[in-house]
Amino acid sequence: MKVIMNTIEKPYLLYLGTSDSDLSIKTCRGIAQWRPEFCIGQYYTGSSDLTVGLKQMYPKEAKENGAKTMIIGLANSGGRISKSWIADIIEAIEAGLDIASGLHEKLSDIEEIQTAALKHKRKLHDIRHHKGHLPVGNGKKRSGKRILTIGTDCAVGKMYTALALEKEMKKRGFDADFVATGQTGILIKGEGISIDAVLADFISGAVELLSPDNKPEHWDIIEGQGSLFNPSFAGVSTGLLHGAQSDYLILCHEANRINIKDLEGFKVPNLKECINTNLSLAKLTNPNVKLLGVSLNCRKLNKVEAYKQIEDIENRLSLPCVDPMLTGVSKIVDSII
Amino acid sequence: MKVIMNTIEKPYLLYLGTSDSDLSIKTCRGIAQWRPEFCIGQYYTGSSDLTVGLKQMYPKEAKENGAKTMIIGLANSGGRISKSWIADIIEAIEAGLDIASGLHEKLSDIEEIQTAALKHKRKLHDIRHHKGHLPVGNGKKRSGKRILTIGTDCAVGKMYTALALEKEMKKRGFDADFVATGQTGILIKGEGISIDAVLADFISGAVELLSPDNKPEHWDIIEGQGSLFNPSFAGVSTGLLHGAQSDYLILCHEANRINIKDLEGFKVPNLKECINTNLSLAKLTNPNVKLLGVSLNCRKLNKVEAYKQIEDIENRLSLPCVDPMLTGVSKIVDSII
Repeated sequence: MKVIMNTIEKPYLLYLGTSDSDLSIKTCRGIAQWRPEFCIGQYYTGSSDLTVGLKQMYPKEAKENGAKTMIIGLANSGGRISKSWIADIIEAIEAGLDIASGLHEKLSDIEEIQTAALKHKRKLHDIRHHKGHLPVGNGKKRSGKRILTIGTDCAVGKMYTALALEKEMKKRGFDADFVATGQTGILIKGEGISIDAVLADFISGAVELLSPDNKPEHWDIIEGQGSLFNPSFAGVSTGLLHGAQSDYLILCHEANRINIKDLEGFKVPNLKECINTNLSLAKLTNPNVKLLGVSLNCRKLNKVEAYKQIEDIENRLSLPCVDPMLTGVSKIVDSII
Repeated sequence: MKVIMNTIEKPYLLYLGTSDSDLSIKTCRGIAQWRPEFCIGQYYTGSSDLTVGLKQMYPKEAKENGAKTMIIGLANSGGRISKSWIADIIEAIEAGLDIASGLHEKLSDIEEIQTAALKHKRKLHDIRHHKGHLPVGNGKKRSGKRILTIGTDCAVGKMYTALALEKEMKKRGFDADFVATGQTGILIKGEGISIDAVLADFISGAVELLSPDNKPEHWDIIEGQGSLFNPSFAGVSTGLLHGAQSDYLILCHEANRINIKDLEGFKVPNLKECINTNLSLAKLTNPNVKLLGVSLNCRKLNKVEAYKQIEDIENRLSLPCVDPMLTGVSKIVDSII
């Protein structure tokens, strides 16, 4: 299976680019937070004091310290490779590092980068662009257990919740693995498929490939994408739901979000409605699917209000509700046992 | 809008290939049936008596009679361009025809074909491969009216029903247009986007592009794809449902089909369940969506049994049920008025 997935060699040098915007290094911050053991250092060539808390080093120094890949984990509008990064990327290639990028524009489409990579025999990973043949989903029952994070909308904490769950389950001795389906997740995990960028016919097939048969006691914690209630991306969410064949779903929601992100006239669904619709579709490939709990992203609330809303949801749904940042996810893991 | 869609110049010479299998010319047969006015002739270079009932002619003769494009409307396993067709395709290019193919393998990936097209300044249309930038769906209310054919499964008659409906509505003076979302539909219509082959993030956006704002009295009859109950392709169906923003759905079903096509262990849903799930998802982008009726594909029944099943469905659902081949679709058009 791994052959056709994006497999990126670790450890990493995190490239923070040249901008002074904290938002631009969101993906690097995610990697440094969730996989500090994969990170040798950071390389920032701008003029501010931007940092993800790692040691600042040049590619050559990173290579000497064992780094294998420099990660372009940068977000900018349009997903373009900025001209101001090209010299830094070539410097890293010349120092002997592979390059991995989650941007829309391909590394291999920039001639200087492609030429340098060929000359120095380095790999270029354009992780949003999946290579190779994907199967059409077949819905066949697979062994092992699966949890999928679903959402009332985009950007509510589906990846964060899945990673927090993996960490807590591993701590308690579960055989559990995070399964990456988006750019940041793939860079954190080091492999995966960007599900929103596969051809529409292969959405569920790609998820089946990402989470194949496994030992009966093994848990795949699959990162969800989009929402059935976001009309831009619900096709992706449906294919994920069917391909995941989940035993359990965890509903992710941002407290106090009223409107669907970036779309006029669409309301975030109420939790009950969102749960019912997801369970009803998910039953097609796993009739025994259940909701395990709710992950409430309380970043816009004060502590008192956050705990109040969490309690309120628990009372309404008779299920555990957590905020991974505030409460951790142990209550949800308890409910598996 | 048309700029970024596949627009194929008419009229056509239909290329029937070299095989003796009637199944291989299914797409050509569809074009000859639904758009005889677009077809100048057929070109068959095999050794059997395969025909779609058009005059047999060489590309040169077709060109002299006004043909603009030779259509490779052939189905074979894997969607490859057979070596035995290449000389015929080049002959057509040299005669001054564009080439349009619905196969998976690209015409432009075959060097001899690409070279000939450049030399003779002919266009190559690989209609499954959409060119250009697609928008992300936004769910904004569009003017004009829309009907979408949905299905209990794949290959139940969604395209056929949409085309029959367009024909009947036009006959009665409606301002109605078929909107093509699959290979055969695109070749019949001469334009469209193969929705199953766009990137997953753009499914609903592609449908919004295909069926933009229109006059209040205009009807788009949108060809559906897949089924919410087919776990291979339900992501495509969901995106289509949201992008179509339908006023009316027509449920297509094949009489006596029990199992989902090509998938072990999946049953065709009962009509009521299928209708409810589709309406519930479709409401996200059009809260007023309604089911207009059922199109029952009775090809495996005798006439008596067919009429019995049609009547039975009408009694159960209190909605018109038709078989476009057997009864025509006028009962469904009646119910619009």
